[in-house]
Amino acid sequence: MTAAPARDDGIGGEGGIVLTADAIARAVSGELIGDGAVEVRGVAPLERATSTDLSYLAAARHAPALAASRAAVVLVSPELASVEGADVRARVIVADPQAAMATLLPQFARTGVPHSGIHATASIGKGVKLGRGVSIGAYVVIGDDVVVGEGAIVGAHCVIASGVQIGDETRLYPHVTVYSGAVLGRAVTVHSGARIASDGFGYIFRSGRHEKIPHVGGCVIGDHVEIGANSTIDRGSLGDTVIGAGTKIDNLVHIAHNCRVGKNCLFAAQVGLAGSVVVEDGVALGGQAGVGDHRTIGAGARIAGRAGVIGDVPAGETWSGYPARPHRAALQAQAALFRLPPLLKRLERLLGTEGTSG
Amino acid sequence: MTAAPARDDGIGGEGGIVLTADAIARAVSGELIGDGAVEVRGVAPLERATSTDLSYLAAARHAPALAASRAAVVLVSPELASVEGADVRARVIVADPQAAMATLLPQFARTGVPHSGIHATASIGKGVKLGRGVSIGAYVVIGDDVVVGEGAIVGAHCVIASGVQIGDETRLYPHVTVYSGAVLGRAVTVHSGARIASDGFGYIFRSGRHEKIPHVGGCVIGDHVEIGANSTIDRGSLGDTVIGAGTKIDNLVHIAHNCRVGKNCLFAAQVGLAGSVVVEDGVALGGQAGVGDHRTIGAGARIAGRAGVIGDVPAGETWSGYPARPHRAALQAQAALFRLPPLLKRLERLLGTEGTSG
Amino acid sequence: MTAAPARDDGIGGEGGIVLTADAIARAVSGELIGDGAVEVRGVAPLERATSTDLSYLAAARHAPALAASRAAVVLVSPELASVEGADVRARVIVADPQAAMATLLPQFARTGVPHSGIHATASIGKGVKLGRGVSIGAYVVIGDDVVVGEGAIVGAHCVIASGVQIGDETRLYPHVTVYSGAVLGRAVTVHSGARIASDGFGYIFRSGRHEKIPHVGGCVIGDHVEIGANSTIDRGSLGDTVIGAGTKIDNLVHIAHNCRVGKNCLFAAQVGLAGSVVVEDGVALGGQAGVGDHRTIGAGARIAGRAGVIGDVPAGETWSGYPARPHRAALQAQAALFRLPPLLKRLERLLGTEGTSG
Repeated sequence: MTAAPARDDGIGGEGGIVLTADAIARAVSGELIGDGAVEVRGVAPLERATSTDLSYLAAARHAPALAASRAAVVLVSPELASVEGADVRARVIVADPQAAMATLLPQFARTGVPHSGIHATASIGKGVKLGRGVSIGAYVVIGDDVVVGEGAIVGAHCVIASGVQIGDETRLYPHVTVYSGAVLGRAVTVHSGARIASDGFGYIFRSGRHEKIPHVGGCVIGDHVEIGANSTIDRGSLGDTVIGAGTKIDNLVHIAHNCRVGKNCLFAAQVGLAGSVVVEDGVALGGQAGVGDHRTIGAGARIAGRAGVIGDVPAGETWSGYPARPHRAALQAQAALFRLPPLLKRLERLLGTEGTSG
Repeated sequence: MTAAPARDDGIGGEGGIVLTADAIARAVSGELIGDGAVEVRGVAPLERATSTDLSYLAAARHAPALAASRAAVVLVSPELASVEGADVRARVIVADPQAAMATLLPQFARTGVPHSGIHATASIGKGVKLGRGVSIGAYVVIGDDVVVGEGAIVGAHCVIASGVQIGDETRLYPHVTVYSGAVLGRAVTVHSGARIASDGFGYIFRSGRHEKIPHVGGCVIGDHVEIGANSTIDRGSLGDTVIGAGTKIDNLVHIAHNCRVGKNCLFAAQVGLAGSVVVEDGVALGGQAGVGDHRTIGAGARIAGRAGVIGDVPAGETWSGYPARPHRAALQAQAALFRLPPLLKRLERLLGTEGTSG
Repeated sequence: MTAAPARDDGIGGEGGIVLTADAIARAVSGELIGDGAVEVRGVAPLERATSTDLSYLAAARHAPALAASRAAVVLVSPELASVEGADVRARVIVADPQAAMATLLPQFARTGVPHSGIHATASIGKGVKLGRGVSIGAYVVIGDDVVVGEGAIVGAHCVIASGVQIGDETRLYPHVTVYSGAVLGRAVTVHSGARIASDGFGYIFRSGRHEKIPHVGGCVIGDHVEIGANSTIDRGSLGDTVIGAGTKIDNLVHIAHNCRVGKNCLFAAQVGLAGSVVVEDGVALGGQAGVGDHRTIGAGARIAGRAGVIGDVPAGETWSGYPARPHRAALQAQAALFRLPPLLKRLERLLGTEGTSG
């Protein structure tokens, strides 16, 4: 991994960092074995690490990869401290190598911070308030009366409608659209192509056609929320669509009008919430899961990938399948289903039926 | 809700409207109780309405919210006409408060109409015909020989390929891409990030590789169609992909090459149609539903959310589940499945089997 | 179909080609019957073809469409050589008319090649290397140290982060975002709105909140890969996300961090791969299918549309359903499920149970 300069247009770049084994050991409160002066400039998995990379050994089964590794520095757990790497020049012993790596990674991050300042090509409306240290990228379009907080980064090509509020330290990657009615909190991250506060999907069938119900509600995104690439969050019809602080949303997720999502939830990719769903705090939704309109998912519940929720889920439970049920019941039903065909054949013979399908 | 100026860059803004209780009562043919001179500037649900908001009471169970509401004006039904709100200064009695609200909402809509005119940064090709009163936003790129109808709005950052036709009063929100081969009708709405007439997914496997079949068909979008944020509609291979007039499509929907969708259909978010699907008029598809290639969904059919359709669906029927079946049969099968495990255990004991899984 | 000029802004346009029946017969090594001098300028299905169109007859059941067709030239198989079209002036007899059409289609393709050159509004970073004959569209933003290969086309509004590498003859349609860490091979096609190398979805729960794990891995896209509109491919956490040469990916597909996809795979629309999935060479995934994290799909396996894979799939097998199973077992289980309700009723009577649901 080559260290490239950190400057970019609101989208990435590497850190250009150089760390010694000594500095690493200090940063993670680990014990250093080997040459503390060895320098690393990047990170990589054991198999692909080179002589300027830091890596880590998470589990005993990967010990052979360490033995063959060319990494310069490796984080290892006390149990595996005796495994030596081919060209490894320093080891740092810590209780949880993976967590230690997570602590160090920000220093190697690709997402370099762009220069602060307003690009000459940005189009800024009337009455816009820009906080200190903001970075507004190339070809950004900002409507009237928008507020952008201190240190916020608006990536190239973002379009922000009139009246939108964006909190301090919030970062929009390129190509984000924020419709009118959105209020983004502090330290929010929105990835490329996400659409915030778009029109909800609501119509009244009158005189032989679907007549649009204008959506005049808002879309409130809490502090530290992260929204993935190409996800869509509609604004409310009358009230607001709300995403609670600390909730993390993956790519291609859809959240419909009037949903109220709690704090610290995790939504994996391609999840969909229909209108007016309530998701309480700390809920995890697996990939491609869907929730029917007006349902409630209780605090701390876990919904498996691809589950289709059409009822309310009590707090703390794990549900799966379609229609989603408590996970244990769903597993039993699925297992029974696959034991069924041969049994059914014998049974029909026994009962003298002939597949009297409903 | 504060009234912001309507000017924007093709994406939003509020109306800045002020309505009296008198004017509201007249607009919905309702009976006024209270002070007809009271003014509202916004709309909000009962719980969050303030002294300048209009709200409505839809059902008796929300009567306590009305009693506590600070809304200035409330729409109520005759049965609930006696419920008085805390700070409500005028009530308007109508048969269907929700429908009356839908009638009034356009006046409060966030989607202000941008100025007509061509932004100085728009890049316009040769032979382009722009109708009277069009609005072409910042950084728009329009290829050669494009036709944009009267009063059409092309939001900031849209890219429109050569030869595309866009009807009168049609509105593209920012960041829409229209590939060559598309013809959009009158009063079509396309939300941010939608891709119209992109290449269909077709290959021939020859000489050990997937060879692309060029798609030379078109993509025809009927009048009054609405297409949600980040949805994709591919153009046809030889013939056209067609979306019938009045059909409404939610966010993140995929419609493959050669599909023919009828009039006044509703597709909820994350629906997917494989190639050459025929959807007749007035069909409703629930969220995350999918339809296999070359299938036909008959007129007026309803497909439940998450249904996976792998056969043809007769007109007027409701189907659900995977593989989708008539809804009643699907419900019975699902119910039976969850009664199965304990029964199976007893049965296997009875028949002397041991889970002879297939 | 009217022949429009090929010039565009990186997104489309038609070829303006004119072919004689003679030239067509030569190109596909077919036998000409009729007037070899007849000219065609476009292609269309039999029913909609006009006097300047080429069409083809693929199957005997479409013979009536040929009989009524106004196409100028038609490709037919030897068995159907005797069917004459209403206004058809030349027929070309070939063993496989559809394959012959696929051979001819590129000449009629809508995707005209834009002029080479760098648009005056493009913003190009420091140290960027642009190959000969590149085409950089309007409002493109390219970070520092990017490499763009010979003949590559970067459509209008694309944003390419610092350090990205793009191979020769690769084409990005408008509105593509490429984050830092991406390496695109030769002759790759990326459709509008796709996001390459976006942040993976990874957090550690510490001190009551989800703490982001920075993703410092890469995203390597092989030669001849095609990526559909609005699809998202995340970069790796430590190592790379890899898409093998020749793999074709449809619209709205999600591929999570660290996935390793082999060569010549086909992923239909709305497919989702969770983190660290391994897909070997030549695998086909049907629309809306999903694969759980860390699973392996063996070479040549076929996964049906909407399948939810939560285990490893052996090479060469066909799996379907949720949880996905070998296709034959899944079909049997589904069939049994729909025979179950009436049987269950009789059975419960027989066993004296009362729906002892789990």
